[in-house]
Amino acid sequence: MSHAQKGPLYLTNTLTRRKEEFIPLRPPHVGLYVCGPTVYSDVHLGNVRTFTTFDLLYRWLRHLGYTVRYVRNITDVGHLVGDVDEGEDKIAKRARLEQLEPMEIVQKYTNGFHDVMRLFNILPPSIEPTATGHLIEQIEMVKRIIDAGYGYEANGSVYFDVPKFAEKHAYGELSGRRIDELQANTRDTEGMDEKRSPLDFAIWKKADPTHLMKWPSPWGEGFPGWHLECSAMSTKYLGQTFDIHGGGMDLKFPHHECEIAQSVAADGHAPVRYWMHGNMLTVNGRKMAKSEGNGFTPEELITGNHKLLEKGYSAMTVRFFMLQCHYASTLDFSNAALQAAEKGLERLMAAMDVLDKLKPAPAPDAAQDEAVKALAQRCHEAMNDDLNSPVLIAELFEGVRLINSANDGKVLLSAAAISGLQELFRAMVFDVLGLKREAQAAADDKALDGLVQVFIQMRAEAKARKDFATSDRIRDQLAAMGIVLKDTKEGTTWQRA
Amino acid sequence: MSHAQKGPLYLTNTLTRRKEEFIPLRPPHVGLYVCGPTVYSDVHLGNVRTFTTFDLLYRWLRHLGYTVRYVRNITDVGHLVGDVDEGEDKIAKRARLEQLEPMEIVQKYTNGFHDVMRLFNILPPSIEPTATGHLIEQIEMVKRIIDAGYGYEANGSVYFDVPKFAEKHAYGELSGRRIDELQANTRDTEGMDEKRSPLDFAIWKKADPTHLMKWPSPWGEGFPGWHLECSAMSTKYLGQTFDIHGGGMDLKFPHHECEIAQSVAADGHAPVRYWMHGNMLTVNGRKMAKSEGNGFTPEELITGNHKLLEKGYSAMTVRFFMLQCHYASTLDFSNAALQAAEKGLERLMAAMDVLDKLKPAPAPDAAQDEAVKALAQRCHEAMNDDLNSPVLIAELFEGVRLINSANDGKVLLSAAAISGLQELFRAMVFDVLGLKREAQAAADDKALDGLVQVFIQMRAEAKARKDFATSDRIRDQLAAMGIVLKDTKEGTTWQRA
Repeated sequence: MSHAQKGPLYLTNTLTRRKEEFIPLRPPHVGLYVCGPTVYSDVHLGNVRTFTTFDLLYRWLRHLGYTVRYVRNITDVGHLVGDVDEGEDKIAKRARLEQLEPMEIVQKYTNGFHDVMRLFNILPPSIEPTATGHLIEQIEMVKRIIDAGYGYEANGSVYFDVPKFAEKHAYGELSGRRIDELQANTRDTEGMDEKRSPLDFAIWKKADPTHLMKWPSPWGEGFPGWHLECSAMSTKYLGQTFDIHGGGMDLKFPHHECEIAQSVAADGHAPVRYWMHGNMLTVNGRKMAKSEGNGFTPEELITGNHKLLEKGYSAMTVRFFMLQCHYASTLDFSNAALQAAEKGLERLMAAMDVLDKLKPAPAPDAAQDEAVKALAQRCHEAMNDDLNSPVLIAELFEGVRLINSANDGKVLLSAAAISGLQELFRAMVFDVLGLKREAQAAADDKALDGLVQVFIQMRAEAKARKDFATSDRIRDQLAAMGIVLKDTKEGTTWQRA
Repeated sequence: MSHAQKGPLYLTNTLTRRKEEFIPLRPPHVGLYVCGPTVYSDVHLGNVRTFTTFDLLYRWLRHLGYTVRYVRNITDVGHLVGDVDEGEDKIAKRARLEQLEPMEIVQKYTNGFHDVMRLFNILPPSIEPTATGHLIEQIEMVKRIIDAGYGYEANGSVYFDVPKFAEKHAYGELSGRRIDELQANTRDTEGMDEKRSPLDFAIWKKADPTHLMKWPSPWGEGFPGWHLECSAMSTKYLGQTFDIHGGGMDLKFPHHECEIAQSVAADGHAPVRYWMHGNMLTVNGRKMAKSEGNGFTPEELITGNHKLLEKGYSAMTVRFFMLQCHYASTLDFSNAALQAAEKGLERLMAAMDVLDKLKPAPAPDAAQDEAVKALAQRCHEAMNDDLNSPVLIAELFEGVRLINSANDGKVLLSAAAISGLQELFRAMVFDVLGLKREAQAAADDKALDGLVQVFIQMRAEAKARKDFATSDRIRDQLAAMGIVLKDTKEGTTWQRA
């Protein structure tokens, strides 16, 4: 499908706070960068929402025919506790607690992150670079920032000079902060023996001798500042200016604001044309956080093993639930909403089963051919309207009603209408929304046991009426299928041969 | 289980060509490094065998109670076509062919590698470092080699001076090559305008301006030599001398020989105490290679979609087949051998099902308690004898005979004997051999259909004899379980409700 075929794509650019037509720099290529996880602990569901949002964007851009280079990083050094410039590295701290080498922590939680991404059917990015894998690129960028006059060394660390940068450039444009207000309001004294202004941030930090994660640099042994990696890696793989940068809303300031400043300072270009931010997940109206005791993990969600969960919900139920809400809105996580999503997803999948088997009516209603085309167009427009997945899903339920009516013989669909619906549902449900059938295995196991129990009951009844021909026949037929009945004092059980 | 409890572990050290008692440097810690894949193409089955071998080692060391730091690298730069010092980087070449950025190639084939590892139930290592993630460490190592007098710069590249190194140190010890014979036999002229001796190898290569994968260094823009990354990364994560280094036999020379020389030159220590090498996989007696047309992928193996395969084999069948052969022997891959392995694995798994349900005999044979203990001891000794998995599997089949005899009432086992067998089989089959139940879903689906077909037949018979009470009852009972029968002209079909 061509990207020009069905009208333009509009995205809300958080830099301009407007819905804008998306025009890539070098079509059919699109460069997309999304801030990935800091791999020091289990992924929580808020992260899953963010990555689901950008998975939806990635899938939609591909559906439109773009060749997307999707870069999503792994932060494995430089992210300090409290997201500040002083204190312990989050990964080093966890390594100390778990008595492991920092890179063992990185591997463990990277593997865990990938498992969760796979569980939620979130596609892997084209490139998944790590901060430790790009130290040279970061050191080179620090040099360029210093050379441009916006970085200064102090005691083996290098800081970005925010007030000096703000004299000539917009600082705070993305987050809507004003430099004078920031200066008036700051009570931040960390690193003030080294920093010229409390607004300055570290782009290279000196490491003390006990630090495990450190590398040689022109300023001595140290490690990169947290904000730097994304600038260095997006520049390396997507160029000095690229199409779309995404992340969770909490990263707007200071992280993304600093990314802009770093790129402008080092290379003289605004790095990103379209900024996109996903909104937060709340639980029963309260912010999800570990400290609140409501930040359950994907595993707890699936098993239902958490005090706030009435039952377990499948990964696809949760994905569907998330996509029923627009990415820019907050989403509240409640049992009632999850259970409604579970039912909705079942209805959608059941309709797709019906659709697979639907036969054309002998005398189809030609008007329905147009109705199916119009439905497909509305689905497309919903996604082109800033990825409006809730509207897309509502349109798909219009389709569900049509499918069920056709199955009941109340609507007469032609072969063309049926194949149009099949193409639409496959594309939108599987490719774009990224939903998939699941848990069939568990369901089959239950069904199998149910059937065997019916045989066991029939056999007992046949025995009771002394119809041994029938009871033996049932036993033999099951045995032929590898199901062995065993009569015990407690009744008849079965097992596989 | 303590590692001292049941006798010492012996491993064949390919450096000394002898079976030696394994004594770790810093018990209970063990440092293990294994050369991972160069991620420029799909993994082939020979690679899978190598990684299965070291997975078995990793699992056995953990079973013995060691805390293992298992480092297995990803080679994502520096490995040139033909494994030589001149020519194109394997990844850069593939990137050109697929019209992708080199790091997109790296990501694609790293993901594919991980998928295959998961398929074969090969555990992830503790740390999976990449060559591009350790450029600074490699540059530092080149500096140390130059400082020690064993490296020289020529035209922006740096070479390792093999003849000079060999004057004072053993070179060729691992691979059994003699420096004078190597010198006499070499006809290698690549890079001879820069190399002092044809035996020298690149530790840093100058990159031409069109090269995409290059980094600044004290010798100009370039990239590390292939042999260097393993030395730099093993030193970083396991220390200058560590316990075990493994890899495929084809890596002994020059790769591992060069690793030893680099570490001795840079840091003055032999890097590895125990070298281990896995043997090759052949197909119908011929070496597996893409050029021979017999190098099938794991996917072809599972689907059976290859001219040399009579049918598909499950990943666990292949894993079991590989483990039935000692890692140091060549293994020939044939349909007959695979089919035998398939049957053997089924027998093993079926016995484990029986074992799960086995009840103690009312008057058990006390001698069997000792027999089970002796069996467990023999299993343990087999693995302690240089990971002799074929002997372990043969012992487990002794256990299978015992289990089946007990199930038939021919052998009378106590509760202790049964739980001893259960513990042994769970530990050896699942934890150590890394086998798992699979394809249950597919089997269930087949069984389910088989059962429903029996019901359909019974219902047809009931209808034929006008016993509508029975035929309706069958239909209703199935419907209650979500299985809907549909009578058509072609007969009765079923579907899920």
